[in-house]
Amino acid sequence: MENNLLTLRTLFDSALDEQIRFVMTPIEMLKPMVYSLKNGGKRLRPLLLLSTLSIQSTDLIKSGLKTAIALEYIHTYSLIHDDLPAMDDDEIRRGQPTNHIQFDEATAILAGDALLTDAFGIIVEDDLLSAETKNKLIFELSRAAGSHGMVAGQLSDIQANEEADFDDLVTIHSLKTGKLFTFAVKAAAIIAELDEQEMQLLVDFSEHFGRAYQIHNDIMDVEGTEEGTGKKVKKDQKHHKVTYPSLLGLEASKQELKKELDAGKDKLRQLNKQTNKPYQQLNAFLDLLTLKEAS
Amino acid sequence: MENNLLTLRTLFDSALDEQIRFVMTPIEMLKPMVYSLKNGGKRLRPLLLLSTLSIQSTDLIKSGLKTAIALEYIHTYSLIHDDLPAMDDDEIRRGQPTNHIQFDEATAILAGDALLTDAFGIIVEDDLLSAETKNKLIFELSRAAGSHGMVAGQLSDIQANEEADFDDLVTIHSLKTGKLFTFAVKAAAIIAELDEQEMQLLVDFSEHFGRAYQIHNDIMDVEGTEEGTGKKVKKDQKHHKVTYPSLLGLEASKQELKKELDAGKDKLRQLNKQTNKPYQQLNAFLDLLTLKEAS
Repeated sequence: MENNLLTLRTLFDSALDEQIRFVMTPIEMLKPMVYSLKNGGKRLRPLLLLSTLSIQSTDLIKSGLKTAIALEYIHTYSLIHDDLPAMDDDEIRRGQPTNHIQFDEATAILAGDALLTDAFGIIVEDDLLSAETKNKLIFELSRAAGSHGMVAGQLSDIQANEEADFDDLVTIHSLKTGKLFTFAVKAAAIIAELDEQEMQLLVDFSEHFGRAYQIHNDIMDVEGTEEGTGKKVKKDQKHHKVTYPSLLGLEASKQELKKELDAGKDKLRQLNKQTNKPYQQLNAFLDLLTLKEAS
Repeated sequence: MENNLLTLRTLFDSALDEQIRFVMTPIEMLKPMVYSLKNGGKRLRPLLLLSTLSIQSTDLIKSGLKTAIALEYIHTYSLIHDDLPAMDDDEIRRGQPTNHIQFDEATAILAGDALLTDAFGIIVEDDLLSAETKNKLIFELSRAAGSHGMVAGQLSDIQANEEADFDDLVTIHSLKTGKLFTFAVKAAAIIAELDEQEMQLLVDFSEHFGRAYQIHNDIMDVEGTEEGTGKKVKKDQKHHKVTYPSLLGLEASKQELKKELDAGKDKLRQLNKQTNKPYQQLNAFLDLLTLKEAS
Protein backbone atom coordinates (compact mmCIF):
# COMPACT_ATOMS: atom_id res chain seq x y z
CA MET A 1 0.00 0.00 0.00
CA GLU A 2 1.25 3.43 -0.76
CA ASN A 3 1.60 6.21 1.75
CA ASN A 4 -1.73 7.87 1.18
CA LEU A 5 -3.58 4.62 1.86
CA LEU A 6 -1.65 4.06 5.08
CA THR A 7 -2.55 7.53 6.31
CA LEU A 8 -6.20 6.99 5.50
CA ARG A 9 -6.08 3.59 7.15
CA THR A 10 -4.76 5.12 10.39
CA LEU A 11 -7.48 7.76 10.25
CA PHE A 12 -10.15 5.14 9.64
CA ASP A 13 -8.93 2.88 12.44
CA SER A 14 -9.03 5.77 14.95
CA ALA A 15 -12.52 6.74 13.85
CA LEU A 16 -13.67 3.14 14.19
CA ASP A 17 -12.14 2.89 17.67
CA GLU A 18 -13.90 6.07 18.70
CA GLN A 19 -17.20 4.79 17.28
CA ILE A 20 -16.91 1.62 19.33
CA ARG A 21 -15.74 3.39 22.48
CA PHE A 22 -18.72 5.72 22.76
CA VAL A 23 -21.43 3.27 21.95
CA MET A 24 -23.98 2.33 24.65
CA THR A 25 -24.30 -1.27 23.52
CA PRO A 26 -24.26 -3.85 26.37
CA ILE A 27 -20.80 -5.40 26.65
CA GLU A 28 -21.88 -9.00 25.92
CA MET A 29 -23.40 -7.75 22.65
CA LEU A 30 -20.49 -5.47 21.78
CA LYS A 31 -17.83 -8.14 22.29
CA PRO A 32 -18.69 -10.40 19.34
CA MET A 33 -19.27 -7.34 17.13
CA VAL A 34 -15.85 -5.87 17.95
CA TYR A 35 -14.19 -9.29 17.64
CA SER A 36 -15.04 -9.41 13.94
CA LEU A 37 -14.72 -5.67 13.31
CA LYS A 38 -11.15 -5.76 14.60
CA ASN A 39 -10.13 -9.07 13.11
CA GLY A 40 -7.43 -7.67 10.85
CA GLY A 41 -9.46 -6.78 7.78
CA LYS A 42 -7.80 -4.84 4.98
CA ARG A 43 -10.50 -2.12 5.12
CA LEU A 44 -10.60 -2.04 1.32
CA ARG A 45 -14.15 -0.69 1.08
CA PRO A 46 -13.78 2.21 3.54
CA LEU A 47 -10.35 3.02 2.05
CA LEU A 48 -11.80 3.14 -1.45
CA LEU A 49 -14.44 5.57 -0.19
CA LEU A 50 -11.95 7.76 1.69
CA SER A 51 -9.37 7.68 -1.13
CA THR A 52 -11.97 8.82 -3.63
CA LEU A 53 -12.87 11.68 -1.29
CA SER A 54 -9.22 12.61 -0.66
CA ILE A 55 -8.78 13.05 -4.42
CA GLN A 56 -11.46 15.76 -4.29
CA SER A 57 -10.04 17.60 -1.28
CA THR A 58 -8.36 16.73 2.00
CA ASP A 59 -11.12 18.55 3.90
CA LEU A 60 -13.74 16.16 2.61
CA ILE A 61 -12.15 13.05 4.13
CA LYS A 62 -13.68 13.55 7.57
CA SER A 63 -17.14 13.86 6.01
CA GLY A 64 -16.75 10.29 4.80
CA LEU A 65 -15.61 8.66 8.02
CA LYS A 66 -19.01 7.71 9.46
CA THR A 67 -20.19 6.32 6.12
CA ALA A 68 -16.92 4.40 5.80
CA ILE A 69 -17.50 2.90 9.26
CA ALA A 70 -21.07 1.97 8.32
CA LEU A 71 -19.76 0.30 5.17
CA GLU A 72 -17.23 -1.73 7.15
CA TYR A 73 -19.99 -2.72 9.60
CA ILE A 74 -22.03 -4.07 6.67
CA HIS A 75 -19.06 -5.87 5.17
CA THR A 76 -18.20 -7.39 8.56
CA TYR A 77 -21.75 -8.60 9.18
CA SER A 78 -21.77 -10.23 5.73
CA LEU A 79 -18.57 -12.15 6.54
CA ILE A 80 -19.95 -13.35 9.90
CA HIS A 81 -23.13 -14.65 8.28
CA ASP A 82 -21.29 -16.12 5.24
CA ASP A 83 -19.04 -18.11 7.56
CA LEU A 84 -21.97 -19.76 9.42
CA PRO A 85 -22.35 -23.57 9.25
CA ALA A 86 -25.55 -23.21 7.18
CA MET A 87 -23.66 -21.06 4.66
CA ASP A 88 -19.97 -21.50 3.77
CA ASP A 89 -19.18 -23.25 7.08
CA ASP A 90 -15.76 -21.65 7.58
CA GLU A 91 -13.82 -21.98 10.80
CA ILE A 92 -10.95 -19.63 9.99
CA ARG A 93 -11.07 -16.07 8.71
CA ARG A 94 -8.02 -13.82 8.56
CA GLY A 95 -6.05 -16.42 10.52
CA GLN A 96 -8.50 -16.34 13.46
CA PRO A 97 -11.47 -18.49 14.48
CA THR A 98 -14.62 -17.25 12.78
CA ASN A 99 -17.26 -15.57 14.93
CA HIS A 100 -19.43 -18.66 15.51
CA ILE A 101 -16.35 -20.71 16.46
CA GLN A 102 -15.06 -18.05 18.87
CA PHE A 103 -18.51 -17.51 20.40
CA ASP A 104 -21.43 -19.67 19.22
CA GLU A 105 -23.80 -19.76 16.31
CA ALA A 106 -26.63 -17.80 17.93
CA THR A 107 -24.23 -15.07 19.03
CA ALA A 108 -22.72 -14.87 15.55
CA ILE A 109 -26.12 -14.50 13.90
CA LEU A 110 -27.06 -11.74 16.36
CA ALA A 111 -23.70 -9.96 16.14
CA GLY A 112 -24.19 -9.82 12.36
CA ASP A 113 -27.75 -8.55 12.76
CA ALA A 114 -26.57 -5.85 15.18
CA LEU A 115 -23.75 -4.65 12.89
CA LEU A 116 -26.16 -4.46 9.96
CA THR A 117 -28.80 -2.55 11.95
CA ASP A 118 -26.34 -0.19 13.61
CA ALA A 119 -24.72 0.71 10.27
CA PHE A 120 -27.73 2.79 9.23
CA GLY A 121 -27.80 4.53 12.59
CA ILE A 122 -24.14 5.50 12.23
CA ILE A 123 -24.85 7.33 8.97
CA VAL A 124 -27.84 9.30 10.31
CA GLU A 125 -25.88 10.29 13.42
CA ASP A 126 -23.23 12.02 11.29
CA ASP A 127 -23.22 15.77 12.08
CA LEU A 128 -21.11 16.68 9.05
CA LEU A 129 -23.62 15.71 6.38
CA SER A 130 -26.96 17.27 5.43
CA ALA A 131 -30.19 15.35 5.93
CA GLU A 132 -30.56 15.03 2.13
CA THR A 133 -27.06 13.61 1.74
CA LYS A 134 -27.66 11.08 4.51
CA ASN A 135 -30.92 9.99 2.86
CA LYS A 136 -29.13 9.43 -0.44
CA LEU A 137 -26.38 7.43 1.27
CA ILE A 138 -28.88 5.25 3.13
CA PHE A 139 -30.86 4.64 -0.03
CA GLU A 140 -27.73 3.52 -1.91
CA LEU A 141 -26.45 1.43 1.00
CA SER A 142 -29.77 -0.36 1.44
CA ARG A 143 -29.92 -1.07 -2.30
CA ALA A 144 -26.30 -2.22 -2.49
CA ALA A 145 -26.50 -4.50 0.55
CA GLY A 146 -30.11 -5.73 0.52
CA SER A 147 -32.40 -7.87 -1.59
CA HIS A 148 -31.37 -6.09 -4.81
CA GLY A 149 -27.67 -6.44 -4.08
CA MET A 150 -25.27 -8.29 -1.84
CA VAL A 151 -27.75 -10.59 -0.08
CA ALA A 152 -29.31 -11.61 -3.41
CA GLY A 153 -25.80 -12.39 -4.68
CA GLN A 154 -25.04 -14.52 -1.66
CA LEU A 155 -28.29 -16.46 -2.16
CA SER A 156 -27.52 -17.05 -5.86
CA ASP A 157 -24.02 -18.14 -4.94
CA ILE A 158 -25.38 -20.73 -2.51
CA GLN A 159 -28.02 -21.92 -4.97
CA ALA A 160 -25.64 -22.04 -7.94
CA ASN A 161 -24.81 -25.56 -9.00
CA GLU A 162 -22.15 -26.94 -11.27
CA GLU A 163 -24.20 -26.07 -14.32
CA ALA A 164 -23.74 -22.35 -13.70
CA ASP A 165 -22.00 -20.67 -16.63
CA PHE A 166 -19.70 -17.69 -17.00
CA ASP A 167 -22.55 -15.17 -17.18
CA ASP A 168 -24.08 -16.56 -13.98
CA LEU A 169 -20.72 -16.24 -12.27
CA VAL A 170 -20.31 -12.60 -13.32
CA THR A 171 -23.84 -11.76 -12.17
CA ILE A 172 -23.43 -13.48 -8.82
CA HIS A 173 -20.20 -11.67 -8.05
CA SER A 174 -21.34 -8.30 -9.31
CA LEU A 175 -24.05 -8.55 -6.65
CA LYS A 176 -22.19 -10.35 -3.90
CA THR A 177 -18.86 -8.52 -4.05
CA GLY A 178 -19.26 -5.72 -6.57
CA LYS A 179 -22.14 -3.80 -5.05
CA LEU A 180 -20.31 -2.76 -1.87
CA PHE A 181 -17.25 -1.57 -3.83
CA THR A 182 -19.57 0.41 -6.07
CA PHE A 183 -21.27 1.84 -2.99
CA ALA A 184 -17.86 3.04 -1.76
CA VAL A 185 -17.28 5.24 -4.83
CA LYS A 186 -20.94 6.27 -5.12
CA ALA A 187 -20.92 7.37 -1.48
CA ALA A 188 -17.82 9.49 -2.14
CA ALA A 189 -19.51 10.98 -5.22
CA ILE A 190 -22.65 11.79 -3.18
CA ILE A 191 -20.68 13.38 -0.35
CA ALA A 192 -18.47 15.37 -2.75
CA GLU A 193 -21.49 16.23 -4.94
CA LEU A 194 -19.78 15.06 -8.13
CA ASP A 195 -21.67 15.31 -11.41
CA GLU A 196 -23.39 12.35 -13.05
CA GLN A 197 -20.62 11.71 -15.60
CA GLU A 198 -17.81 11.62 -13.05
CA MET A 199 -19.86 9.33 -10.80
CA GLN A 200 -20.54 6.98 -13.70
CA LEU A 201 -16.83 6.66 -14.54
CA LEU A 202 -16.14 5.94 -10.88
CA VAL A 203 -18.86 3.29 -10.88
CA ASP A 204 -17.31 1.74 -14.02
CA PHE A 205 -13.92 1.72 -12.29
CA SER A 206 -15.41 0.08 -9.17
CA GLU A 207 -17.01 -2.64 -11.28
CA HIS A 208 -13.70 -3.55 -12.91
CA PHE A 209 -12.05 -3.45 -9.51
CA GLY A 210 -14.78 -5.66 -8.03
CA ARG A 211 -14.43 -8.26 -10.77
CA ALA A 212 -10.64 -8.19 -10.50
CA TYR A 213 -10.95 -8.62 -6.74
CA GLN A 214 -13.13 -11.70 -7.15
CA ILE A 215 -10.94 -13.31 -9.81
CA HIS A 216 -7.87 -12.62 -7.66
CA ASN A 217 -9.65 -14.24 -4.71
CA ASP A 218 -10.56 -17.32 -6.75
CA ILE A 219 -6.98 -17.66 -8.06
CA MET A 220 -5.57 -17.29 -4.54
CA ASP A 221 -7.86 -20.09 -3.36
CA VAL A 222 -6.10 -22.38 -5.86
CA GLU A 223 -2.56 -21.00 -5.71
CA GLY A 224 -2.31 -19.31 -2.31
CA THR A 225 -1.22 -20.75 1.03
CA GLU A 226 -3.17 -20.66 4.28
CA GLU A 227 -0.46 -18.43 5.78
CA GLY A 228 -0.63 -15.99 2.89
CA THR A 229 -4.41 -15.67 2.67
CA GLY A 230 -5.33 -16.08 6.36
CA LYS A 231 -8.02 -18.60 5.52
CA LYS A 232 -8.35 -22.18 4.37
CA VAL A 233 -7.44 -22.55 0.71
CA LYS A 234 -8.83 -25.04 -1.84
CA LYS A 235 -12.19 -24.69 -0.13
CA ASP A 236 -13.97 -23.56 -3.30
CA GLN A 237 -13.15 -26.91 -4.85
CA LYS A 238 -14.19 -28.75 -1.71
CA HIS A 239 -17.56 -26.93 -1.73
CA HIS A 240 -17.93 -27.53 -5.50
CA LYS A 241 -18.13 -23.80 -5.93
CA VAL A 242 -18.19 -22.40 -9.42
CA THR A 243 -15.19 -20.08 -9.70
CA TYR A 244 -13.21 -18.38 -12.45
CA PRO A 245 -10.52 -21.12 -12.40
CA SER A 246 -13.13 -23.90 -12.37
CA LEU A 247 -14.88 -22.41 -15.41
CA LEU A 248 -12.01 -20.90 -17.39
CA GLY A 249 -8.93 -22.69 -16.08
CA LEU A 250 -6.10 -20.97 -14.23
CA GLU A 251 -4.30 -19.35 -17.16
CA ALA A 252 -7.42 -17.85 -18.72
CA SER A 253 -8.44 -16.60 -15.26
CA LYS A 254 -5.13 -14.77 -14.97
CA GLN A 255 -5.73 -13.23 -18.39
CA GLU A 256 -9.22 -12.21 -17.28
CA LEU A 257 -7.79 -10.63 -14.14
CA LYS A 258 -5.26 -8.66 -16.21
CA LYS A 259 -8.06 -7.53 -18.54
CA GLU A 260 -10.10 -6.17 -15.63
CA LEU A 261 -7.11 -4.44 -14.05
CA ASP A 262 -6.24 -2.80 -17.39
CA ALA A 263 -9.82 -1.68 -17.88
CA GLY A 264 -9.79 -0.23 -14.35
CA LYS A 265 -6.59 1.69 -15.09
CA ASP A 266 -8.13 2.97 -18.26
CA LYS A 267 -11.12 4.37 -16.36
CA LEU A 268 -8.77 6.17 -13.99
CA ARG A 269 -6.93 7.71 -16.94
CA GLN A 270 -10.27 8.91 -18.34
CA LEU A 271 -11.26 10.33 -14.97
CA ASN A 272 -7.95 12.17 -14.72
CA LYS A 273 -8.21 13.51 -18.24
CA GLN A 274 -11.76 14.78 -17.80
CA THR A 275 -11.39 16.29 -14.35
CA ASN A 276 -7.69 17.03 -13.93
CA LYS A 277 -7.88 15.44 -10.50
CA PRO A 278 -5.18 12.91 -9.42
CA TYR A 279 -7.38 9.83 -9.94
CA GLN A 280 -4.25 7.75 -10.68
CA GLN A 281 -3.93 7.48 -6.90
CA LEU A 282 -6.64 4.83 -7.07
CA ASN A 283 -4.21 2.64 -9.05
CA ALA A 284 -2.96 1.61 -5.61
CA PHE A 285 -6.13 -0.51 -5.29
CA LEU A 286 -5.49 -2.26 -8.59
CA ASP A 287 -1.86 -2.86 -7.62
CA LEU A 288 -3.06 -4.85 -4.60
CA LEU A 289 -4.58 -7.38 -7.01
CA THR A 290 -1.66 -7.64 -9.45
CA LEU A 291 -0.17 -11.12 -9.38
CA LYS A 292 3.55 -11.28 -8.77
CA GLU A 293 5.41 -12.68 -11.81
CA ALA A 294 7.32 -15.13 -9.64
CA SER A 295 4.30 -16.85 -8.09
CA MET B 1 -60.50 -5.84 16.80
CA GLU B 2 -62.68 -2.82 16.44
CA ASN B 3 -63.67 -1.24 13.16
CA ASN B 4 -60.93 1.35 12.98
CA LEU B 5 -58.24 -1.31 13.35
CA LEU B 6 -59.78 -3.43 10.60
CA THR B 7 -59.83 -0.46 8.23
CA LEU B 8 -56.20 0.33 9.01
CA ARG B 9 -55.30 -3.31 8.60
CA THR B 10 -56.82 -3.38 5.09
CA LEU B 11 -54.95 -0.20 4.23
CA PHE B 12 -51.69 -1.61 5.53
CA ASP B 13 -52.10 -4.93 3.70
CA SER B 14 -52.69 -3.12 0.39
CA ALA B 15 -49.66 -0.91 0.93
CA LEU B 16 -47.53 -3.96 1.75
CA ASP B 17 -48.78 -5.76 -1.38
CA GLU B 18 -47.91 -2.74 -3.47
CA GLN B 19 -44.47 -2.53 -1.88
CA ILE B 20 -43.77 -6.15 -2.74
CA ARG B 21 -45.24 -5.91 -6.25
CA PHE B 22 -43.00 -3.07 -7.41
CA VAL B 23 -39.77 -4.29 -5.96
CA MET B 24 -36.91 -5.32 -8.32
CA THR B 25 -35.67 -8.10 -6.06
CA PRO B 26 -34.86 -11.39 -7.87
CA ILE B 27 -37.74 -13.84 -7.46
CA GLU B 28 -35.74 -16.54 -5.62
CA MET B 29 -34.78 -13.90 -3.03
CA LEU B 30 -38.25 -12.36 -2.83
CA LYS B 31 -40.04 -15.67 -2.30
CA PRO B 32 -38.73 -16.50 1.20
CA MET B 33 -39.13 -12.85 2.22
CA VAL B 34 -42.76 -12.74 1.13
CA TYR B 35 -43.44 -16.18 2.64
CA SER B 36 -42.76 -14.82 6.11
CA LEU B 37 -44.14 -11.32 5.47
CA LYS B 38 -47.49 -12.81 4.47
CA ASN B 39 -47.62 -15.59 7.01
CA GLY B 40 -50.72 -14.33 8.81
CA GLY B 41 -49.17 -11.92 11.29
CA LYS B 42 -51.45 -9.72 13.36
CA ARG B 43 -49.57 -6.56 12.19
CA LEU B 44 -49.69 -5.19 15.75
CA ARG B 45 -46.66 -2.92 15.34
CA PRO B 46 -47.70 -1.23 12.09
CA LEU B 47 -51.28 -0.96 13.38
CA LEU B 48 -50.10 0.72 16.57
CA LEU B 49 -48.18 3.24 14.46
CA LEU B 50 -51.07 3.89 12.08
CA SER B 51 -53.68 4.04 14.88
CA THR B 52 -51.63 6.62 16.73
CA LEU B 53 -51.43 8.66 13.53
CA SER B 54 -55.15 8.29 12.81
CA ILE B 55 -55.89 9.81 16.21
CA GLN B 56 -54.05 12.95 15.07
CA SER B 57 -55.78 13.22 11.69
CA THR B 58 -56.99 10.89 8.97
CA ASP B 59 -54.77 12.67 6.45
CA LEU B 60 -51.65 11.66 8.33
CA ILE B 61 -52.24 7.92 8.01
CA LYS B 62 -50.75 7.63 4.53
CA SER B 63 -47.58 9.39 5.74
CA GLY B 64 -47.01 6.47 8.09
CA LEU B 65 -47.51 3.60 5.65
CA LYS B 66 -43.91 3.21 4.45
CA THR B 67 -42.56 3.40 7.99
CA ALA B 68 -45.18 0.87 9.09
CA ILE B 69 -44.03 -1.47 6.31
CA ALA B 70 -40.39 -1.02 7.32
CA LEU B 71 -41.34 -1.83 10.91
CA GLU B 72 -43.12 -5.03 9.85
CA TYR B 73 -40.07 -5.98 7.73
CA ILE B 74 -37.88 -5.64 10.84
CA HIS B 75 -40.32 -7.60 13.01
CA THR B 76 -40.56 -10.34 10.36
CA TYR B 77 -36.77 -10.64 10.01
CA SER B 78 -36.48 -10.97 13.80
CA LEU B 79 -38.98 -13.84 13.83
CA ILE B 80 -37.16 -15.67 11.00
CA HIS B 81 -33.82 -15.41 12.81
CA ASP B 82 -35.34 -16.24 16.24
CA ASP B 83 -36.85 -19.44 14.83
CA LEU B 84 -33.48 -20.73 13.49
CA PRO B 85 -32.07 -24.00 14.91
CA ALA B 86 -29.21 -22.10 16.58
CA MET B 87 -31.73 -19.84 18.33
CA ASP B 88 -35.20 -20.99 19.48
CA ASP B 89 -35.32 -23.89 16.98
CA ASP B 90 -39.00 -23.54 16.14
CA GLU B 91 -40.63 -25.44 13.31
CA ILE B 92 -44.07 -23.85 13.41
CA ARG B 93 -45.01 -20.19 13.44
CA ARG B 94 -48.57 -18.94 12.98
CA GLY B 95 -49.63 -22.50 12.11
CA GLN B 96 -47.17 -22.72 9.17
CA PRO B 97 -43.67 -24.18 8.79
CA THR B 98 -41.07 -21.62 9.85
CA ASN B 99 -38.89 -20.09 7.12
CA HIS B 100 -35.93 -22.46 7.50
CA ILE B 101 -38.27 -25.48 7.43
CA GLN B 102 -40.14 -24.26 4.35
CA PHE B 103 -36.87 -23.30 2.57
CA ASP B 104 -33.54 -24.06 4.25
CA GLU B 105 -31.37 -22.51 6.92
CA ALA B 106 -29.13 -20.48 4.59
CA THR B 107 -32.14 -19.06 2.76
CA ALA B 108 -33.81 -18.16 6.06
CA ILE B 109 -30.73 -16.33 7.32
CA LEU B 110 -30.47 -14.39 4.05
CA ALA B 111 -34.20 -13.65 3.82
CA GLY B 112 -33.94 -12.13 7.30
CA ASP B 113 -30.86 -10.13 6.33
CA ALA B 114 -32.61 -8.83 3.22
CA LEU B 115 -35.76 -7.77 5.11
CA LEU B 116 -33.65 -5.96 7.67
CA THR B 117 -31.55 -4.16 5.05
CA ASP B 118 -34.48 -3.27 2.81
CA ALA B 119 -36.44 -1.79 5.74
CA PHE B 120 -34.18 1.26 5.88
CA GLY B 121 -34.43 1.74 2.11
CA ILE B 122 -38.23 1.72 2.31
CA ILE B 123 -38.21 4.64 4.75
CA VAL B 124 -35.83 6.81 2.68
CA GLU B 125 -37.85 6.13 -0.48
CA ASP B 126 -40.96 7.66 1.08
CA ASP B 127 -41.97 10.76 -0.91
CA LEU B 128 -44.39 12.01 1.73
CA LEU B 129 -41.83 12.71 4.46
CA SER B 130 -39.11 15.36 4.68
CA ALA B 131 -35.44 14.37 4.70
CA GLU B 132 -35.19 15.44 8.36
CA THR B 133 -38.18 13.32 9.36
CA LYS B 134 -36.76 10.29 7.57
CA ASN B 135 -33.43 10.76 9.32
CA LYS B 136 -35.14 10.85 12.71
CA LEU B 137 -37.16 7.72 11.90
CA ILE B 138 -34.06 5.83 10.74
CA PHE B 139 -32.15 6.89 13.84
CA GLU B 140 -34.93 5.62 16.11
CA LEU B 141 -35.44 2.41 14.15
CA SER B 142 -31.74 1.58 14.17
CA ARG B 143 -31.59 2.23 17.92
CA ALA B 144 -34.75 0.25 18.65
CA ALA B 145 -33.77 -2.77 16.55
CA GLY B 146 -29.97 -2.86 16.81
CA SER B 147 -27.27 -3.46 19.39
CA HIS B 148 -28.94 -1.06 21.88
CA GLY B 149 -32.35 -2.64 21.48
CA MET B 150 -34.03 -5.72 20.12
CA VAL B 151 -30.93 -7.68 19.11
CA ALA B 152 -29.31 -7.07 22.50
CA GLY B 153 -32.53 -8.32 24.12
CA GLN B 154 -32.52 -11.46 22.02
CA LEU B 155 -28.89 -12.15 22.98
CA SER B 156 -29.66 -11.67 26.71
CA ASP B 157 -32.67 -13.94 26.37
CA ILE B 158 -30.52 -16.69 24.86
CA GLN B 159 -27.80 -16.22 27.46
CA ALA B 160 -30.20 -16.02 30.40
CA ASN B 161 -30.09 -19.06 32.61
CA GLU B 162 -32.39 -20.28 35.34
CA GLU B 163 -30.80 -17.91 37.83
CA ALA B 164 -32.24 -14.90 36.04
CA ASP B 165 -34.52 -12.89 38.33
CA PHE B 166 -37.56 -10.71 37.81
CA ASP B 167 -35.53 -7.59 36.99
CA ASP B 168 -33.51 -9.50 34.36
CA LEU B 169 -36.74 -10.70 32.80
CA VAL B 170 -38.20 -7.19 32.61
CA THR B 171 -34.98 -5.81 31.08
CA ILE B 172 -34.73 -8.60 28.50
CA HIS B 173 -38.29 -8.12 27.33
CA SER B 174 -38.19 -4.34 27.35
CA LEU B 175 -35.38 -4.70 24.78
CA LYS B 176 -36.53 -7.77 22.89
CA THR B 177 -40.24 -6.98 22.57
CA GLY B 178 -40.76 -3.52 24.00
CA LYS B 179 -38.45 -1.48 21.78
CA LEU B 180 -40.33 -2.10 18.54
CA PHE B 181 -43.68 -1.23 20.14
CA THR B 182 -42.13 1.94 21.47
CA PHE B 183 -40.73 2.69 18.02
CA ALA B 184 -44.27 2.41 16.62
CA VAL B 185 -45.59 5.24 18.80
CA LYS B 186 -42.38 7.29 18.56
CA ALA B 187 -42.52 7.08 14.77
CA ALA B 188 -46.11 8.34 14.83
CA ALA B 189 -45.05 11.17 17.16
CA ILE B 190 -42.17 12.10 14.81
CA ILE B 191 -44.36 12.04 11.70
CA ALA B 192 -47.13 14.03 13.41
CA GLU B 193 -44.59 16.37 15.06
CA LEU B 194 -46.08 15.90 18.53
CA ASP B 195 -44.51 17.73 21.45
CA GLU B 196 -42.12 16.09 23.91
CA GLN B 197 -44.72 15.59 26.65
CA GLU B 198 -47.26 13.89 24.41
CA MET B 199 -44.55 11.65 22.95
CA GLN B 200 -43.41 10.67 26.43
CA LEU B 201 -46.91 9.64 27.50
CA LEU B 202 -47.19 7.58 24.32
CA VAL B 203 -43.85 5.95 25.09
CA ASP B 204 -45.08 5.15 28.62
CA PHE B 205 -48.23 3.63 27.16
CA SER B 206 -46.19 1.53 24.70
CA GLU B 207 -44.01 0.22 27.53
CA HIS B 208 -47.03 -0.97 29.52
CA PHE B 209 -48.47 -2.48 26.35
CA GLY B 210 -45.15 -4.22 25.55
CA ARG B 211 -44.92 -5.74 29.03
CA ALA B 212 -48.56 -6.81 28.94
CA TYR B 213 -47.94 -8.37 25.52
CA GLN B 214 -45.02 -10.41 26.84
CA ILE B 215 -46.82 -11.58 29.98
CA HIS B 216 -49.86 -12.52 27.87
CA ASN B 217 -47.55 -14.48 25.54
CA ASP B 218 -45.95 -16.32 28.44
CA ILE B 219 -49.34 -17.18 29.96
CA MET B 220 -50.63 -18.41 26.57
CA ASP B 221 -47.60 -20.68 26.31
CA VAL B 222 -48.77 -22.40 29.49
CA GLU B 223 -52.54 -22.20 29.06
CA GLY B 224 -53.10 -21.88 25.31
CA THR B 225 -53.58 -24.57 22.70
CA GLU B 226 -51.56 -25.03 19.51
CA GLU B 227 -54.70 -24.26 17.48
CA GLY B 228 -55.36 -21.06 19.38
CA THR B 229 -51.82 -19.66 19.34
CA GLY B 230 -50.64 -21.02 15.95
CA LYS B 231 -47.39 -22.26 17.45
CA LYS B 232 -46.17 -25.00 19.71
CA VAL B 233 -47.13 -24.38 23.32
CA LYS B 234 -45.25 -25.40 26.48
CA LYS B 235 -42.02 -24.74 24.61
CA ASP B 236 -40.78 -22.16 27.13
CA GLN B 237 -40.75 -24.89 29.74
CA LYS B 238 -39.06 -27.32 27.34
CA HIS B 239 -36.34 -24.74 26.63
CA HIS B 240 -35.99 -23.93 30.34
CA LYS B 241 -36.86 -20.35 29.49
CA VAL B 242 -37.34 -17.91 32.30
CA THR B 243 -40.88 -16.56 31.95
CA TYR B 244 -43.38 -14.65 34.05
CA PRO B 245 -45.22 -17.87 35.04
CA SER B 246 -41.94 -19.68 35.82
CA LEU B 247 -40.83 -16.83 38.11
CA LEU B 248 -44.10 -15.61 39.59
CA GLY B 249 -46.49 -18.52 39.10
CA LEU B 250 -49.58 -18.36 36.91
CA GLU B 251 -51.92 -16.43 39.23
CA ALA B 252 -49.42 -13.69 40.05
CA SER B 253 -48.61 -13.43 36.32
CA LYS B 254 -52.27 -12.80 35.58
CA GLN B 255 -52.30 -10.10 38.26
CA GLU B 256 -49.17 -8.57 36.72
CA LEU B 257 -50.82 -8.60 33.31
CA LYS B 258 -53.88 -6.84 34.70
CA LYS B 259 -51.65 -4.26 36.40
CA GLU B 260 -49.91 -3.42 33.12
CA LEU B 261 -53.17 -3.24 31.18
CA ASP B 262 -54.64 -0.89 33.81
CA ALA B 263 -51.54 1.28 33.75
CA GLY B 264 -51.76 1.42 29.93
CA LYS B 265 -55.41 2.49 30.14
CA ASP B 266 -54.46 5.13 32.64
CA LYS B 267 -51.87 6.60 30.23
CA LEU B 268 -54.51 6.78 27.50
CA ARG B 269 -56.85 8.64 29.86
CA GLN B 270 -54.06 11.11 30.63
CA LEU B 271 -53.32 11.55 26.93
CA ASN B 272 -56.97 12.20 26.23
CA LYS B 273 -57.29 14.66 29.10
CA GLN B 274 -54.23 16.65 28.10
CA THR B 275 -54.82 16.76 24.37
CA ASN B 276 -58.54 16.26 23.88
CA LYS B 277 -57.73 13.72 21.17
CA PRO B 278 -59.57 10.35 21.13
CA TYR B 279 -56.64 8.35 22.54
CA GLN B 280 -59.11 5.86 24.08
CA GLN B 281 -59.15 4.27 20.62
CA LEU B 282 -55.81 2.67 21.54
CA ASN B 283 -57.64 0.69 24.25
CA ALA B 284 -58.38 -1.72 21.39
CA PHE B 285 -54.74 -2.87 21.67
CA LEU B 286 -55.04 -3.52 25.38
CA ASP B 287 -58.32 -5.39 24.83
CA LEU B 288 -56.45 -7.87 22.60
CA LEU B 289 -54.43 -8.91 25.66
CA THR B 290 -57.28 -9.15 28.15
CA LEU B 291 -57.77 -12.72 29.32
CA LYS B 292 -61.29 -14.07 28.97
CA GLU B 293 -62.86 -14.78 32.38
CA ALA B 294 -63.89 -18.28 31.29
CA SER B 295 -60.39 -19.50 30.39
